[in-house]
Amino acid sequence: MPTSTIKESQVDVLVIGAGPAGLMAANALAKYGVNVRIVDKRPDKVAAGQADGIQPRTIEVLQSYGLADRLLKEGNQMHVAAFYNPSPSGGIELTDRVPDVTAPSARYPFEVTLHQGAIESIFLDSMRLSGVEVSRPVVPTSISISKEESALTDPLSHPVRVVLSYLKPINQAEEGEEGEAEIVHAKFVIGADGAHSWVRKSLDIVMEGEQTDYIWGVVDLTPDTDFPDIRNRCAIHSSQGSCMIIPREGDKVRLYIQLDDKSAHVMSNGRIDKNKLQPSILLETARRCLYPYKIATPESFDWWTIYIIGQRVASRFSVNERVFIVGDACHTHSPKAGQGMNASMNDSHNLAWKLALYLKGFGSMSLLKTYEFERRKYAQDLINFDKQFAKLFSGKPRTEAFQDGVSHEEFLQIFQTFGGFTSGIGIHYADSAITNSKHQSKAAKLIVGQRILPQIFLRAADSRPVEIQDMLPSDGRFKILVFTGNSSEPEQLQRVQEAAKNLHELMMKAAGSTNEVSSLFEVLPISSASRKHVRYNDLPKTLWSHWSKVLIDDVDVRGTQGGDGYTNYGVDREEGCMVVVRPDGYIGMIAPLEDKAEGLADYLAAFSTFKL
Amino acid sequence: MPTSTIKESQVDVLVIGAGPAGLMAANALAKYGVNVRIVDKRPDKVAAGQADGIQPRTIEVLQSYGLADRLLKEGNQMHVAAFYNPSPSGGIELTDRVPDVTAPSARYPFEVTLHQGAIESIFLDSMRLSGVEVSRPVVPTSISISKEESALTDPLSHPVRVVLSYLKPINQAEEGEEGEAEIVHAKFVIGADGAHSWVRKSLDIVMEGEQTDYIWGVVDLTPDTDFPDIRNRCAIHSSQGSCMIIPREGDKVRLYIQLDDKSAHVMSNGRIDKNKLQPSILLETARRCLYPYKIATPESFDWWTIYIIGQRVASRFSVNERVFIVGDACHTHSPKAGQGMNASMNDSHNLAWKLALYLKGFGSMSLLKTYEFERRKYAQDLINFDKQFAKLFSGKPRTEAFQDGVSHEEFLQIFQTFGGFTSGIGIHYADSAITNSKHQSKAAKLIVGQRILPQIFLRAADSRPVEIQDMLPSDGRFKILVFTGNSSEPEQLQRVQEAAKNLHELMMKAAGSTNEVSSLFEVLPISSASRKHVRYNDLPKTLWSHWSKVLIDDVDVRGTQGGDGYTNYGVDREEGCMVVVRPDGYIGMIAPLEDKAEGLADYLAAFSTFKL
Repeated sequence: MPTSTIKESQVDVLVIGAGPAGLMAANALAKYGVNVRIVDKRPDKVAAGQADGIQPRTIEVLQSYGLADRLLKEGNQMHVAAFYNPSPSGGIELTDRVPDVTAPSARYPFEVTLHQGAIESIFLDSMRLSGVEVSRPVVPTSISISKEESALTDPLSHPVRVVLSYLKPINQAEEGEEGEAEIVHAKFVIGADGAHSWVRKSLDIVMEGEQTDYIWGVVDLTPDTDFPDIRNRCAIHSSQGSCMIIPREGDKVRLYIQLDDKSAHVMSNGRIDKNKLQPSILLETARRCLYPYKIATPESFDWWTIYIIGQRVASRFSVNERVFIVGDACHTHSPKAGQGMNASMNDSHNLAWKLALYLKGFGSMSLLKTYEFERRKYAQDLINFDKQFAKLFSGKPRTEAFQDGVSHEEFLQIFQTFGGFTSGIGIHYADSAITNSKHQSKAAKLIVGQRILPQIFLRAADSRPVEIQDMLPSDGRFKILVFTGNSSEPEQLQRVQEAAKNLHELMMKAAGSTNEVSSLFEVLPISSASRKHVRYNDLPKTLWSHWSKVLIDDVDVRGTQGGDGYTNYGVDREEGCMVVVRPDGYIGMIAPLEDKAEGLADYLAAFSTFKL
Repeated sequence: MPTSTIKESQVDVLVIGAGPAGLMAANALAKYGVNVRIVDKRPDKVAAGQADGIQPRTIEVLQSYGLADRLLKEGNQMHVAAFYNPSPSGGIELTDRVPDVTAPSARYPFEVTLHQGAIESIFLDSMRLSGVEVSRPVVPTSISISKEESALTDPLSHPVRVVLSYLKPINQAEEGEEGEAEIVHAKFVIGADGAHSWVRKSLDIVMEGEQTDYIWGVVDLTPDTDFPDIRNRCAIHSSQGSCMIIPREGDKVRLYIQLDDKSAHVMSNGRIDKNKLQPSILLETARRCLYPYKIATPESFDWWTIYIIGQRVASRFSVNERVFIVGDACHTHSPKAGQGMNASMNDSHNLAWKLALYLKGFGSMSLLKTYEFERRKYAQDLINFDKQFAKLFSGKPRTEAFQDGVSHEEFLQIFQTFGGFTSGIGIHYADSAITNSKHQSKAAKLIVGQRILPQIFLRAADSRPVEIQDMLPSDGRFKILVFTGNSSEPEQLQRVQEAAKNLHELMMKAAGSTNEVSSLFEVLPISSASRKHVRYNDLPKTLWSHWSKVLIDDVDVRGTQGGDGYTNYGVDREEGCMVVVRPDGYIGMIAPLEDKAEGLADYLAAFSTFKL
């Protein structure tokens, strides 16, 4: 329907796509007070199936946005990975049960599974509190970026032009008439529109990599079975093929079933003939694999699909740092290590605060460039891992008769070696404008570029144990942890007072006013004084905004929580230090308490408008 | 306004009074599916002040109703009790900081403080989910109980007649016209109408005990102070008098200030002249006590009051087991050990399930009689404790000049000796129709009559750690924990199968049908099999209703939670046993796995309609 005047509007950030990646971005930006809009072509959120589990690091990230409680309440937890292999008497037998997560520092030592619709709801409800809703069904029909250098580097300009078309939903127009258009002028656009990303294609970004030969079927069902590990993640290698079990919320279970070309009905054009495949056929394959255990055919399946694995990474993740792509739009891989949704949400988690700081006038272009630097490297690592894992998983199991097969020990070793990686805990961003490992030795075990290690400290004022990660919410601010040493000692306190004065002066210089300081930085002192003697209000007032933010490194009154924080972080109890935690919870840099050359000022100047 | 026809109605339970005691009762009954109504004379819930902290045992109880999450989110936690005493240089000084809670088995090792209105809201929101709302402002104007023996013992009769009058609220009539009346015929009435209980007086129940000489003032404020323990519970003994500090939610603090007759303006009739007292006068007294620390006078006080302590217990807690009184209606004491609201809510927690079981046709009159038996004894113990504590607290501190004073050591000793009592953890109900310690030795450390000890077990099917208390929600059902020994051993499994068969037969006999069995009992097997080898579905199906309810006593995959449950409970790993947990979470009885004479059947027959 042609319209005489097309609506035009401006927005700071336009997010295209409201799957987990888009919702993570929009929710974070809304929380940071950014003017953000999000559109999606689907008339409603996903109802069932899709997506993988939530990895330990992603749970930590969701917790930093205040979203983990509900995830943990609604989701299933996988604590154990069980391995089944061919039994000498035919069929399969239990070989081993090991921890599903092999990342010792994980705060949540398990994976959570929950259907994608429920995860999307968690974000939708949170966004609504910030007044942001998804516009749907809406598709973008054109996108262009200004070619003028001045527009591209001006924080106030809106150099991206997107035309949106409001679709008529199947039942009734809610969002607008069919084909009604709107021209949106955005400062930034985030393409979170999935593996077939329209944004990516429109900007001629290519996917590098290849399809594999692995074909997998997936069915979600509520099983009736005598298989004793049905509530554990299982890797099952039988002489009849391989399958994986992923228990889900409630009594539901997901089965991943490896298929050969014939059973997958691959056509001459290399595509799968989906018409020929039924979930009951997939289940039949699984049943052969599970023998001698039985699994009944349910009255209905919750969801099912089939796919050929592609392991590909986009050639670039942004155009001029004005349009970014996140999630499946920039990387696709196999589902077996359950990385997809996690990588996607963490792309957005990495990007959102950078945009917010730029829009605030504090972050510079060099800050925005770190998104591709950090996340593309991660996506490549992910695919290298995936290739190894998928190959091993798809290999035939070693048996008496087939000595060249993959042994359980080999498989387990890879599973555990990559534990830090698959859990997301081991993510390590290399040095860049926002990651500076010069003074690493001052907190030798808080690795610069890695996420802050979980640790229980006590609040000095009331000895209440708190997890440090909970003191560092995703609120868009840098957190500066000041390890003061024993502030109950007058000499040390004097040293701390001097350091506090210098730190405050620097923050004022960088931010311009006290008000801006508190919107960019939060300082948290962590004293090694004991709870028996500490006076929280001894510490300089510039180091804490509220009594609840003064921490000590001591064991709680019951003797079961906290303590050894300095040791666990590798901080000297006499010397102390300062640790900058980025707004996304990763260690940005470490500085001595006496912060001089090559210190905090240099660090801030590298990615912000602050000039030395 | 006279009306020509008075409305009449029937209800199973009428609760009079919607403070914490009444709300706990109504919420529990509503949850159990009982037809319950609750009325209150106040036009709205309490807005500020009132009530004391929530003790560790009460947090456990609230958790069993699914209400602790919100309490913990909204409330303040007290982990430390600090003691201040006269300093040689004048004023006060820190003597000691000790754990506020000295009950090693407490699941929540702290007290929570939160204003009464917020606590009431937690109940109101929960009740609403069951479709129950408080009718207010409504007052009862007459109450009478049938004198016919047959009516009093017939589960179907409504022997209590109460006339209610709907008051007109100050602004606008919402609940009904002024004076509009309703005659309610109730099976049971619960008087939860506070220290000046109309129900109690109407039934000529007297309070036994006396007023003390102790006069206390209370102020709630947001303090501006340099006192370093302002966020800890403090007991301050100065040469200028005594005071207590109770930190509350947010930045609020409650001060308890001891007053002498003069400063309290006691009149010749022994009452306090409230007109002469102002919160600023109370604060002035506290200020002298806190010297050399300073506390500013705030612009306003959140709440304040003053009272003379009464330590009294009602002569009886029920009339014919048809009208019961709970909470302040049957016991009053000093606020200093923070017991009031806790004792009140736990009265109702004790009573509600008994009424529900009687109304279901399962519980007998002997079950109802245990309410007074258990709770009156507790109230008396509470007052005996309170007398000792109040005396000690009000005594002058020992100083160089005053050697007869109370020393810190004496005070601390009492504080810690009574830790189990003040925390509520140590409550111990003596043997009765529902508490039978004959086979105590089979689970030597699960004391019959005490609450079930917190313990982490693993779910056999997925190795997820669970707190046993969370497997025993307050749902009105008896829980039968079957400690099976190592069910992975074929011989032991056979023994368990036999025991399961007998148990199932008994439950069927007692309840009449499978449907009724599941509304009265829940069975939870706890095996000592290891998580490496257990098959959850080996255990007889009559021992579990869902895969998530089969437990094992093992350490979790990370090695940090769970294990040693049999040892901690004093259960032999070979022999096993059965433990009946009452619907309120207290151990009712213990039976051998081979349950014969003097076993479960006898136990059930003692308080139910089940005949041997």
